[in-house]
Amino acid sequence: MPSFEPRNPDYRAAATATFERQPAMRTLGISIARLEPGEVDLAMTYSAQFTQQNGFVHAGVITAGLDNACGIAAFTLMPPGADILTVEFKTNLLAPAKGERFIFRAHVVKPGRTLTVCEARAFAQAGGVESLVATMTGTLMTLMPRA
Amino acid sequence: MPSFEPRNPDYRAAATATFERQPAMRTLGISIARLEPGEVDLAMTYSAQFTQQNGFVHAGVITAGLDNACGIAAFTLMPPGADILTVEFKTNLLAPAKGERFIFRAHVVKPGRTLTVCEARAFAQAGGVESLVATMTGTLMTLMPRA
Amino acid sequence: MPSFEPRNPDYRAAATATFERQPAMRTLGISIARLEPGEVDLAMTYSAQFTQQNGFVHAGVITAGLDNACGIAAFTLMPPGADILTVEFKTNLLAPAKGERFIFRAHVVKPGRTLTVCEARAFAQAGGVESLVATMTGTLMTLMPRA
Amino acid sequence: MPSFEPRNPDYRAAATATFERQPAMRTLGISIARLEPGEVDLAMTYSAQFTQQNGFVHAGVITAGLDNACGIAAFTLMPPGADILTVEFKTNLLAPAKGERFIFRAHVVKPGRTLTVCEARAFAQAGGVESLVATMTGTLMTLMPRA
Repeated sequence: MPSFEPRNPDYRAAATATFERQPAMRTLGISIARLEPGEVDLAMTYSAQFTQQNGFVHAGVITAGLDNACGIAAFTLMPPGADILTVEFKTNLLAPAKGERFIFRAHVVKPGRTLTVCEARAFAQAGGVESLVATMTGTLMTLMPRA
Repeated sequence: MPSFEPRNPDYRAAATATFERQPAMRTLGISIARLEPGEVDLAMTYSAQFTQQNGFVHAGVITAGLDNACGIAAFTLMPPGADILTVEFKTNLLAPAKGERFIFRAHVVKPGRTLTVCEARAFAQAGGVESLVATMTGTLMTLMPRA
Repeated sequence: MPSFEPRNPDYRAAATATFERQPAMRTLGISIARLEPGEVDLAMTYSAQFTQQNGFVHAGVITAGLDNACGIAAFTLMPPGADILTVEFKTNLLAPAKGERFIFRAHVVKPGRTLTVCEARAFAQAGGVESLVATMTGTLMTLMPRA
Repeated sequence: MPSFEPRNPDYRAAATATFERQPAMRTLGISIARLEPGEVDLAMTYSAQFTQQNGFVHAGVITAGLDNACGIAAFTLMPPGADILTVEFKTNLLAPAKGERFIFRAHVVKPGRTLTVCEARAFAQAGGVESLVATMTGTLMTLMPRA
């Protein structure tokens, strides 16, 4: 993976602030575990209230984590003052989301002035073992305030 | 749209039961609004706790609604005893998810013995006006109990 | 489907010219069958040289037709002088692409200043019967020349 | 990346034979450059007849290469006698497909009895430099002959 040069020297504070302004992340129990230019890990503790009919975490909740990981990874490379929008994403669900804790690991594949493409993977941690449960490819858009 | 012949005469009860066994749907405030063979509408009331940084409903929550609409639409055409799994989906976010109430409208495009493809649209209702906010194409898998 | 107002009064000539400047379309034997604001049908005759191991048209060739249908549909709504770029697409293959002739039918779902989202379907025609073989959702980008 | 144990001891001959039975690959000038269990590189020489309006290789042709790379990578892990089908794929186009030669590099992310998920990347080679032009995530299906 290439390393990226952030255009915002305060990228860390800016990305963290954007993440924390999202009530949905608090409600879902998702937090930032690692943050580098173009890379982010989010973590989520298992909660029975977000499960589907077999007791696994719902695909939509896994997608919320993956999408946010992509968004924050893209955001670390955006200029000061930018806002961010998800254009689209695609998720493949590879295994039941069964575990005590979940990690959403995203990195930027291609940063751009308007569009940034990211990839992310969701891992379930259970009994000390980590397993891949889902992948995402997402397209994010940089929004700059009108001059 | 073609009309479909359900293979399970009790498809309505079976689909409703599968939907209601999902704690995530209760937590997110999503319920079944309409249910026909191969078609379903789900409804969700706006809740501030599931929003992103600009006060719109989080893309992951919209995706949870779309994915469940696809799943239940596919499930209405599955044989008795089947369980269902989402294989993958792709979501395009077309407009901010801003409204008092949201509708997730799914229909089966191609039912199959193993795989079923569905399409869904999310609409925001605000001040009596309904607007398209997101689309999904999803692939669902039929799981039959081992003989 | 909503009807769209083209921003380029010569949209028909502009879209046709863009289509015809693509050697790949000529090589694949794809031509414009219908063109309206935000909608296009392309047609392709079966050719054994573009088949896969079972004699069906290769998924990549079907995708080329779907992608071009999306692109031309989006292009009809773009302003004069615009160029167009495909950002991403997702294809579901629903049935073998087996037939004498293929139709790629696209329409704009959401036009935008920068991004336009389209949906397309591929149909195979065989013995007077038309059947759905693939779907696409695609995101297209408007490129304007620098002032 | 994990290493995979092929279930077919003759996976190399089987995968090569399946690839070579596709007239579309010959027509597009695509050949196998590397083949390992769960991994494949395909190569394609630039040809003006497969370009779009700006002289770059058409997105559908790039997709044909990516899809085939995914299919052959998945096929190397399938049991003897299997046939293979693409269920769906999603492509992000990251840069113009401009070059003398193109490489389509795929690997299996998750092999399965019925479904296998692969990722692939397309690279353009120009003047000794290789650059990423597109990504794919695809779902492939194993078809076994009826007993």
